Amino acid sequence: MIRAGIIGATGYAGGELVRLLLGHKETEIVWYGSRSYVDKKYASVYQNMFQIVDAACLDDNMEELAKQADVIFTATPQGFCASMINEEILSQAKVIDLSADFRIKDVKIYEEWYKIEHKAPQYLDEAVYGLCELNREKVKKARLVANPGCYPTCSTLSIYPLVKEGLIDPATIIIDAKSGTSGAGRGAKVDNLYCEVNENIKAYGVAGHRHTPEIEEQLGYAAGEPLVLNFTPHLVPMNRGILITAYASLKKEVTYEEVKAVYDKYYEKEQFVRVLDKDVCPQTKWVEGSNYVDVNFKIDPRTKRIIMMGAMDNLVKGAAGQAVQNMNLLFGLNEATGLQQVPMFP
Amino acid sequence: MIRAGIIGATGYAGGELVRLLLGHKETEIVWYGSRSYVDKKYASVYQNMFQIVDAACLDDNMEELAKQADVIFTATPQGFCASMINEEILSQAKVIDLSADFRIKDVKIYEEWYKIEHKAPQYLDEAVYGLCELNREKVKKARLVANPGCYPTCSTLSIYPLVKEGLIDPATIIIDAKSGTSGAGRGAKVDNLYCEVNENIKAYGVAGHRHTPEIEEQLGYAAGEPLVLNFTPHLVPMNRGILITAYASLKKEVTYEEVKAVYDKYYEKEQFVRVLDKDVCPQTKWVEGSNYVDVNFKIDPRTKRIIMMGAMDNLVKGAAGQAVQNMNLLFGLNEATGLQQVPMFP
Amino acid sequence: MIRAGIIGATGYAGGELVRLLLGHKETEIVWYGSRSYVDKKYASVYQNMFQIVDAACLDDNMEELAKQADVIFTATPQGFCASMINEEILSQAKVIDLSADFRIKDVKIYEEWYKIEHKAPQYLDEAVYGLCELNREKVKKARLVANPGCYPTCSTLSIYPLVKEGLIDPATIIIDAKSGTSGAGRGAKVDNLYCEVNENIKAYGVAGHRHTPEIEEQLGYAAGEPLVLNFTPHLVPMNRGILITAYASLKKEVTYEEVKAVYDKYYEKEQFVRVLDKDVCPQTKWVEGSNYVDVNFKIDPRTKRIIMMGAMDNLVKGAAGQAVQNMNLLFGLNEATGLQQVPMFP
Amino acid sequence: MIRAGIIGATGYAGGELVRLLLGHKETEIVWYGSRSYVDKKYASVYQNMFQIVDAACLDDNMEELAKQADVIFTATPQGFCASMINEEILSQAKVIDLSADFRIKDVKIYEEWYKIEHKAPQYLDEAVYGLCELNREKVKKARLVANPGCYPTCSTLSIYPLVKEGLIDPATIIIDAKSGTSGAGRGAKVDNLYCEVNENIKAYGVAGHRHTPEIEEQLGYAAGEPLVLNFTPHLVPMNRGILITAYASLKKEVTYEEVKAVYDKYYEKEQFVRVLDKDVCPQTKWVEGSNYVDVNFKIDPRTKRIIMMGAMDNLVKGAAGQAVQNMNLLFGLNEATGLQQVPMFP
Repeated sequence: MIRAGIIGATGYAGGELVRLLLGHKETEIVWYGSRSYVDKKYASVYQNMFQIVDAACLDDNMEELAKQADVIFTATPQGFCASMINEEILSQAKVIDLSADFRIKDVKIYEEWYKIEHKAPQYLDEAVYGLCELNREKVKKARLVANPGCYPTCSTLSIYPLVKEGLIDPATIIIDAKSGTSGAGRGAKVDNLYCEVNENIKAYGVAGHRHTPEIEEQLGYAAGEPLVLNFTPHLVPMNRGILITAYASLKKEVTYEEVKAVYDKYYEKEQFVRVLDKDVCPQTKWVEGSNYVDVNFKIDPRTKRIIMMGAMDNLVKGAAGQAVQNMNLLFGLNEATGLQQVPMFP
Repeated sequence: MIRAGIIGATGYAGGELVRLLLGHKETEIVWYGSRSYVDKKYASVYQNMFQIVDAACLDDNMEELAKQADVIFTATPQGFCASMINEEILSQAKVIDLSADFRIKDVKIYEEWYKIEHKAPQYLDEAVYGLCELNREKVKKARLVANPGCYPTCSTLSIYPLVKEGLIDPATIIIDAKSGTSGAGRGAKVDNLYCEVNENIKAYGVAGHRHTPEIEEQLGYAAGEPLVLNFTPHLVPMNRGILITAYASLKKEVTYEEVKAVYDKYYEKEQFVRVLDKDVCPQTKWVEGSNYVDVNFKIDPRTKRIIMMGAMDNLVKGAAGQAVQNMNLLFGLNEATGLQQVPMFP
Repeated sequence: MIRAGIIGATGYAGGELVRLLLGHKETEIVWYGSRSYVDKKYASVYQNMFQIVDAACLDDNMEELAKQADVIFTATPQGFCASMINEEILSQAKVIDLSADFRIKDVKIYEEWYKIEHKAPQYLDEAVYGLCELNREKVKKARLVANPGCYPTCSTLSIYPLVKEGLIDPATIIIDAKSGTSGAGRGAKVDNLYCEVNENIKAYGVAGHRHTPEIEEQLGYAAGEPLVLNFTPHLVPMNRGILITAYASLKKEVTYEEVKAVYDKYYEKEQFVRVLDKDVCPQTKWVEGSNYVDVNFKIDPRTKRIIMMGAMDNLVKGAAGQAVQNMNLLFGLNEATGLQQVPMFP
Repeated sequence: MIRAGIIGATGYAGGELVRLLLGHKETEIVWYGSRSYVDKKYASVYQNMFQIVDAACLDDNMEELAKQADVIFTATPQGFCASMINEEILSQAKVIDLSADFRIKDVKIYEEWYKIEHKAPQYLDEAVYGLCELNREKVKKARLVANPGCYPTCSTLSIYPLVKEGLIDPATIIIDAKSGTSGAGRGAKVDNLYCEVNENIKAYGVAGHRHTPEIEEQLGYAAGEPLVLNFTPHLVPMNRGILITAYASLKKEVTYEEVKAVYDKYYEKEQFVRVLDKDVCPQTKWVEGSNYVDVNFKIDPRTKRIIMMGAMDNLVKGAAGQAVQNMNLLFGLNEATGLQQVPMFP
């Protein structure tokens, strides 16, 4: 049994990690870390766990946790993992960081976009960006995995093949993203109150959202050179789900079949990326509660652009599910262990 | 492997059966019956099943299905199962009927409330009312199980112990129920359009809802004599979930501990009924996607009444989950096989 | 022009007062009071008011406000108005208090249910309970109006005629209420976050909600003697709207026509209470944004009970709209001035 | 009093016209036309109108209606108005068509995108495209007004000034639009059921939505030459509201102030277009129930693009409100008559 510890277990991503790990036959949770709820029964914070989880919350002492666990998930605010990580911890436990601390290789870009000093730049090189579909082999050998952001996961998987194969002009990429409200976290803020979000839609972080450089870095690897793009997230009145609609100019005339073949080349063998049938648009509800990313595209011959779409559950493939997928890779398990939930509809 | 066939597989309860049976290790689905979608890929009707279910829909030929399956689920309109069932079918396959056809023992009451003629009253005696927590032993030996209605499941489980133990006056029971919209089915009706249901709440079927006699029959068994009660369902703008709030006069002064002991007597060993901690009110979100029923109560010394509350997922414990629970009993499996989903929150 | 001042203008009820008063031709708002947002542009707190309201927020100095206004609305937490009110204020301006401070005549009951000391019990006698339909003449002559609570408004109007005319047994009244989330206010609390409320329903304050004694007092006047009843509120995933479903035993057999005649006796001439047609159940969406209360009933001959239903917008008739209705009465205007919004659907 | 007749009064846009015209002091509604509900009380179709509208529905006899009305609103499916309109009708009443029949000047483009034959191309020249902010003077003199589509209204107003002033390259315009579900109409379709829309977001009509050529035509006038663009609508789980997020490449470096000045040049004197303060993103909830369009923009110096945003209520400024605005122009009234609703929040 893999002994798993979670720091930040009472946030939405942390709660989803608990849900998934409870259904994972090779894992037991040994540490429910939550600075805000120390000593409180975990099931009194998330009553869905009543009679399922008996443990009380512990603190966020990562060093102590490293002694008791084989893997540590940090579902914590930016900066926490970087400020705690050290050689001793890494020698005792694998670390999967769900924050952004180790996603961006260039510390200057990190500090510029996140407005905080990076406390452990010495681990940036070693950390593996845990987008399993792209970095599977590297993850298997890692000590420290940077679990990708929700928007970057959906955006990168939807666009990557066309950049990599040179079908689209990387300088023309525009990503218009829509997310459910769980992405905003469980902090008590007026902006996230029911009455403020319900019956409403808005863009936020326009031309400045922190996930932008993360997407640019990943697509830049595909392009073979740096790129800049537009990324605009929107807040949608629903609990879960991310949809991205991306636009780019085609480099040459292509047929549906040619583009489909490119997607299939990358995803045909992937368990969690589904390239939908022709003309079927991804819907977030079709992946809810599951680790799937549904992708598809539409060629617009009038404008010579292609519209790429992707849908996933932000808390699963966009956070906790991908973290478990990474854990499976780290420990040599079948990548889909504990992740075979059928999406729930309606 | 149990070979399962579903008639009515493209309704919401049918879709949920598919979701649950796909995660059930002892079962394979051999028949996706759907009169409206014959020959259409099942996964094109429910795109969440894309790359998970490859089969096309078949018709509703129950006689043919009985030859190919060990168990038949009829998630069909009232009257269908009663009009099809016969000795040949029952000699070949177990039948779990999710409609109301075999729930009410008195054919006159059925015909009065459902306004249709009962085509197979000869099976009413044999049919077992599949509320597992109450009729477990009978279900194990049945050929034909009448899967309980959603409201009756939640109502009966929330109230039964107090009637059975004589703590409340059965003549004073009032049930105020609230349901998500999936309970209204997938038929295209103006009343169920998004814009009609959203931002709205209403009662319906006041003093005339068909689930009333079903609840009365079950609680009547507990009381040892017939009873009448008020049952008022309401439509709530959410997909899943039923909450019932029930009221009754206490026969004598009781303490919290005394009432808690009564609930515990009936449910302590039950896997799917959770009696919550003192003063914690059930919430539908805490059971979403799972087979749990959360119950609790509050004594009001001022009015000498007790308020009983219950929450469950109408599509799981209120339909497909309970049907699978019944199947497990019918085939000698652990009752919780395939039903150990942790509720999804948020 | 009536000069109106609002203390608590940045809560949801305060915001609704602003919306309604801006459309009221005889009024101008002279004071947008908000302790949390002093000096901030009102339209930056409620961006719907952009280019409509130019003023900045002022503090909650009620004495200073009294010098500048003809009427003061206090949409403030319990205790504020009672702690501020004095003879000087009342000699300069009419006061309409949207809190509970002056709704309950018995100071002991107030202090027991609200758990705070009443700072101005000397005004309890003078204060008029501003349920216009019942106390119209008294309101006209008042200096201090206690604007009714949202649940009490809907409950009392739905039940009052049948108690007053002796058709139902007051000892049997049970009120099951459902409210949209704006009733919980704009404070930043985890419980009111979008993801906690959405796709969820729960009861709260069971057997202990503060609106209980207010309803009991008003219906007690109708009964001619004190009564106790059960009142259970529920939180519904929608912004606005209250629905109450009330139950009581009929004292004798009655026909639909007889009961209808009783409702008509009280409401036929009322502009804001609509007794719906036979068998039509009130829906909150049909009154959204308006000052209407829709009521109806259903006799259940089986249980000899009657089910009474009422729907209204909690922020309009349940708060700001009724406050404006009271203001109109206080200043001798047509009661419906500024309140003739047609409900918005969908 | 202007006598107004509505054909299609029981659709959502028709219902909104009724709501607005009932609050319009210079108008009386003389004809509630609805093919589906002839002879049925209008208030039984829209119960929000109970005791407000007493009339029953009439048929869709436009010739007869023209004799009784000064203005006819056709809130009908594509093709209806074109098949009915004639000289006699136009000689008796002004016609405001809320369908697409007369919005596109080139009959070939209309027939290609709408897949129906145009039955009255002879009126295409005469018809005035009723986007009041752009065509105010022409509308005043029109007999036949083509009321703009919802997406085109929001898109055109958000982008027009920058095209007209040459700040952006028209060949690079991409519009990503999000709409509430009332835009899909009141027809009973599975796709618009509550459970299909709720907790879900999807794109639809990708690279083929009928509003595309309408937007292209209007922005083409601004550009001085034909253009093609990408337009992708999305269905959002809310009743009302359209948000558009548009992208285009800047032709040269510009400052915030320069762009702001361009928007102000076009909208400073407009009553219904609000250019928000710097960095404030439009939200649909802030315009709900009102005739406002809120617009704003953000310059992205990294990509040399500008992001333009616009929010409005699809049923008001996107349909019925704009139709009333056009009626006011046609009859020489103040343009804002009956349209001064303050947006409702929350």
